[in-house]
Amino acid sequence: MIRVAVIGAAGYIGGELLRLLIGHPEVERVDAVSSRFPGRRVDGVHPNLRSATDLLFCSADEVDECDTVFLATPHGAAMTQIDRWVGRAKQVIDLTADFRLDDAEVYQRYYRNAHAAPQLLGDFVPGIPELHRERLRGADLVSVPGCMAVAGVLALYPLVVRGLVEPMARFDARTGSSGSGATAGEANLHAERSGAMRVFAPTGHRHEAEISRHLGIAVTMTATGVEAVRGVQTIGHATLRPGVDTAAVRGAFREQYQNEPFVRLVAHKRGTFRYPEPKILLGSNFCDVGYAVDEEAGRLVAIAALDNLMKGGAGNAVQCLNIRMGWPEALGLSFPGLHPI
Amino acid sequence: MIRVAVIGAAGYIGGELLRLLIGHPEVERVDAVSSRFPGRRVDGVHPNLRSATDLLFCSADEVDECDTVFLATPHGAAMTQIDRWVGRAKQVIDLTADFRLDDAEVYQRYYRNAHAAPQLLGDFVPGIPELHRERLRGADLVSVPGCMAVAGVLALYPLVVRGLVEPMARFDARTGSSGSGATAGEANLHAERSGAMRVFAPTGHRHEAEISRHLGIAVTMTATGVEAVRGVQTIGHATLRPGVDTAAVRGAFREQYQNEPFVRLVAHKRGTFRYPEPKILLGSNFCDVGYAVDEEAGRLVAIAALDNLMKGGAGNAVQCLNIRMGWPEALGLSFPGLHPI
Amino acid sequence: MIRVAVIGAAGYIGGELLRLLIGHPEVERVDAVSSRFPGRRVDGVHPNLRSATDLLFCSADEVDECDTVFLATPHGAAMTQIDRWVGRAKQVIDLTADFRLDDAEVYQRYYRNAHAAPQLLGDFVPGIPELHRERLRGADLVSVPGCMAVAGVLALYPLVVRGLVEPMARFDARTGSSGSGATAGEANLHAERSGAMRVFAPTGHRHEAEISRHLGIAVTMTATGVEAVRGVQTIGHATLRPGVDTAAVRGAFREQYQNEPFVRLVAHKRGTFRYPEPKILLGSNFCDVGYAVDEEAGRLVAIAALDNLMKGGAGNAVQCLNIRMGWPEALGLSFPGLHPI
Amino acid sequence: MIRVAVIGAAGYIGGELLRLLIGHPEVERVDAVSSRFPGRRVDGVHPNLRSATDLLFCSADEVDECDTVFLATPHGAAMTQIDRWVGRAKQVIDLTADFRLDDAEVYQRYYRNAHAAPQLLGDFVPGIPELHRERLRGADLVSVPGCMAVAGVLALYPLVVRGLVEPMARFDARTGSSGSGATAGEANLHAERSGAMRVFAPTGHRHEAEISRHLGIAVTMTATGVEAVRGVQTIGHATLRPGVDTAAVRGAFREQYQNEPFVRLVAHKRGTFRYPEPKILLGSNFCDVGYAVDEEAGRLVAIAALDNLMKGGAGNAVQCLNIRMGWPEALGLSFPGLHPI
Repeated sequence: MIRVAVIGAAGYIGGELLRLLIGHPEVERVDAVSSRFPGRRVDGVHPNLRSATDLLFCSADEVDECDTVFLATPHGAAMTQIDRWVGRAKQVIDLTADFRLDDAEVYQRYYRNAHAAPQLLGDFVPGIPELHRERLRGADLVSVPGCMAVAGVLALYPLVVRGLVEPMARFDARTGSSGSGATAGEANLHAERSGAMRVFAPTGHRHEAEISRHLGIAVTMTATGVEAVRGVQTIGHATLRPGVDTAAVRGAFREQYQNEPFVRLVAHKRGTFRYPEPKILLGSNFCDVGYAVDEEAGRLVAIAALDNLMKGGAGNAVQCLNIRMGWPEALGLSFPGLHPI
Repeated sequence: MIRVAVIGAAGYIGGELLRLLIGHPEVERVDAVSSRFPGRRVDGVHPNLRSATDLLFCSADEVDECDTVFLATPHGAAMTQIDRWVGRAKQVIDLTADFRLDDAEVYQRYYRNAHAAPQLLGDFVPGIPELHRERLRGADLVSVPGCMAVAGVLALYPLVVRGLVEPMARFDARTGSSGSGATAGEANLHAERSGAMRVFAPTGHRHEAEISRHLGIAVTMTATGVEAVRGVQTIGHATLRPGVDTAAVRGAFREQYQNEPFVRLVAHKRGTFRYPEPKILLGSNFCDVGYAVDEEAGRLVAIAALDNLMKGGAGNAVQCLNIRMGWPEALGLSFPGLHPI
Repeated sequence: MIRVAVIGAAGYIGGELLRLLIGHPEVERVDAVSSRFPGRRVDGVHPNLRSATDLLFCSADEVDECDTVFLATPHGAAMTQIDRWVGRAKQVIDLTADFRLDDAEVYQRYYRNAHAAPQLLGDFVPGIPELHRERLRGADLVSVPGCMAVAGVLALYPLVVRGLVEPMARFDARTGSSGSGATAGEANLHAERSGAMRVFAPTGHRHEAEISRHLGIAVTMTATGVEAVRGVQTIGHATLRPGVDTAAVRGAFREQYQNEPFVRLVAHKRGTFRYPEPKILLGSNFCDVGYAVDEEAGRLVAIAALDNLMKGGAGNAVQCLNIRMGWPEALGLSFPGLHPI
Repeated sequence: MIRVAVIGAAGYIGGELLRLLIGHPEVERVDAVSSRFPGRRVDGVHPNLRSATDLLFCSADEVDECDTVFLATPHGAAMTQIDRWVGRAKQVIDLTADFRLDDAEVYQRYYRNAHAAPQLLGDFVPGIPELHRERLRGADLVSVPGCMAVAGVLALYPLVVRGLVEPMARFDARTGSSGSGATAGEANLHAERSGAMRVFAPTGHRHEAEISRHLGIAVTMTATGVEAVRGVQTIGHATLRPGVDTAAVRGAFREQYQNEPFVRLVAHKRGTFRYPEPKILLGSNFCDVGYAVDEEAGRLVAIAALDNLMKGGAGNAVQCLNIRMGWPEALGLSFPGLHPI
């Protein structure tokens, strides 16, 4: 049994961490740190936790020594307080954008300001179990990647790592409104955001840099906000190397993911849910991955879907925790999602 | 041709007024007053007006003499600046809550603060053409009622005025998110408000007082925010007086509304849209009214639906303008709504 | 460990039963009966169960002896095949409407056809643990009530049973589209049903009769379909008996529900989720109940919300199963719901 | 004043045609042909037309001579009955897919069956005023393109025709549910389709062939159904030819569309609606077009949005009619769209 702290616990990612950690059989105490609501009941902000907990938010100063600290603060706040938490916890799992890239220059290009702790960039293990499970077993510093990036990476990784596609890819990412956080501005009012198809980043979205880093290829991405609260879908488009056919593609995906507890292959000929779709994944930690091949054109379309607060955030973080602690990887992450929804 | 000014033109009601007035064949100039965005393009805030106008927002001081001023400011701001506008325009049409009640005490009970211009309360003609058409022909001061109130009043008026129901009624009102305005807070973020069934006023909603005033009976109302941007549906429940049957109810509605340009009776035995539903009214000025009678129980259920920014606000205001100016009542208000939507 | 069968397993209630029963620690085998899809994979119809099960639908004839049969067939089909299942299972839990009323005449009035097994009507224990927990411990025949009825009953029961309100009440019920089932017609196409406020039963809805039966008072109800897939909210309106104040109401609710595992009292002065709202309950078995009192008017508004497929159907059925078997009542029903969603 | 007939008037495109034609100042009579509902009131199927018309659906045999026939039947039905209508009307405007391609082989590849009237394929003028205005002035046979195709073509045409991009492009298209029509199947039930991100055509969508035809370049397209009833957004991705910079792109779009009544350029640095978004276009005939340039990568992203039933169907058809008849091109098409919505 361990003790953990969630910094930024009043946010959406923070709330999802609380839900998972409060229900986690190996977690005995959770400190919920919020600079906005210290002393207030947690379930006043996260109403789904009513009757699940009587926890109150506390301030950062009230956090005692603990085993694992989860950083779910606004982007930019983690890198300035990282020293504080490294000293107080055995493991730090950062869910902000601050340590997702390993190159301070790339960080500056995408985030438009200098990194505050560039010397630490190389110390964080990327929180993608499907790529870095072994390193995660001993990782004291973990950086959980962006929601659209996780989906994008898992969509094409099996083909890239096997050299089945040319080393460049385009991604089309769609996301729900919860990615903008619990304190978003007027552009995220329901009357404005409802029913949107808002191309908020035709080029240059920050998750593009992460996908490129993890796949090791040139990447371009376009990001659109669509009508959903939770849910991300990232579609990767790539060119098949000569001679690569559907069977090779299918084989690569199967081989890569057959033992993954949270990646499912979804590419069916019939049925309503033939390809990965986020809505049936809400609350679950799955990333569904599917693909279609146009052999004649040598074209590959890969589709990945997930819940941005789960496999795209809090769920992924807990999966990393489970790996680090040697627990069953799916511990506390068994909810399968709903249908219809 | 007249010149008009819209005060509070950057809000949702203000924007709808602009859409209608810019497209109105008898309006030659519109001043769009915004304290937030003076000098900014109107279509930067109301993107549906792109290519329809090159208008810029101006400050209140820039408004010259004009024929009609529409007040679409936040509630409470109209009563403190009413003198300014009465002097500058021949007619003032107020779309705020400030002059909707004719009793300063009732105002204070429902709005929790004292009225700033109680002496004027009696001078405003209620902007409900179906009840006050004759008075509106000469009205220099008009107060457009609340969106849920218009629907509630039109739902039961034919029965109340004929004494067919007992003098008390309950209303159940549902509304979309645009009623909270363009500067609503975090509770109206898409992630919070999406898919809501939010009972924001189980008792004591302000529109309750308006319905009671116009029907002259005791009224209780419960108000719920449901998933929609535009749209209000108010359901009235009343007890039929002894001997009143379905035929009498049907006759009352028909007689009352047969010549009304913007009230349609909708009560069908079959079809998908058997009773009034807001979604097919978006952008139109109709208030659809329907009813069901339980003769055995002596119970009457009346249903009214409208677009809160149109018949529940800007459209109603323009209808009042048309009446005042002696123009065809439907001038500039011909859009019928869409299906499917 | 027991063996169970779900009849009508391809429907929405059936699918939710499968999700719960497959994940239930005391269930060792589930037969999923579907007359439409025998031999097809269950996860082809219920995509949220991918990787959770390799189960195939079977025909009714393939069901062997088992401990509990859940009937989730279309209404009307349970009463004609009830004998078949009573012989084959120790316990039958019926989720259809067929055995929800205990009076064949009332059944005929609300359902417009004669009951096929009136002699059994009295043998079914209503599946409302909050009212009938003791009887459910020994119940071999259970009838789970309608989704809007469960909410309506739980909203007012504490007051009615204590005689705090007059013996009549009105209910306003709102429901999502999943209540119409997986084979609904053109009126339930997305383009028609999206954004709806469809008053599909202004009077005479069947759940009205159930609420009346369980509360033992006169009941009227109006039912509206609103924009949601899952989720029911039922608002009860009643008149307080003379002398009953807010404290008495609060006390009644607390006393009634303080030990209930799946009823939470939600009536807050501030916050975004002050009253019960379905969306944060999706997938959970909670029924949240709240209330507002207008002491001056002697008026009581009670609000209940639930997930129609869970506490309004499958979850409630599993809760009844747990009670019958002497297991912890919340076994397999621990998912708390999500926020935001 | 002319007389027109709409064949397939009970469908969604048919209903939109009725709305526009009934409100069109130069149309004196509309025959609404429906094989499903002959004799039934038009407003029973299209409730937004209540009070706008008392029209009844008629059978095809009841259509007399008329000036223009609009074919809005299911795909495949137009090519088998085209002779019938050519003989009875001066002009035929086909809104089905049947005459959108000019090559019977391409048709067969994309539609998987042989064309029934290949000899006529070359006789239809494509209903894209922005490309074929002059030919449309004399066109007796017009084929209105697919909704996603119109958006895709308008997104990239200015660059392709000027040789500013390489001769290949990828399109990512998103569409609402109304594109599936009024008789869609279970996959389009609200409970299934709500909140969807359904990749229904990762490759090989039929509109791909149309875009390729009109742009004269190689085209691939991925099509996704997202949460919306109306609305299409097509994003085109292309590679800029060496030396082409942002100014050249901007100049091409401006030059091409500056005098187009229904194309607006939308590419802003700030604001909530910076790029084209369908929701503010509902009911309007605009196609908004925007673009972003990544000069460093030589990458062009062009975005087009429209209402699939308007500029993507009925509105476009009426624009073609206006051109053919020499009327003002925007006649009957003046509705600007709503905000918020």
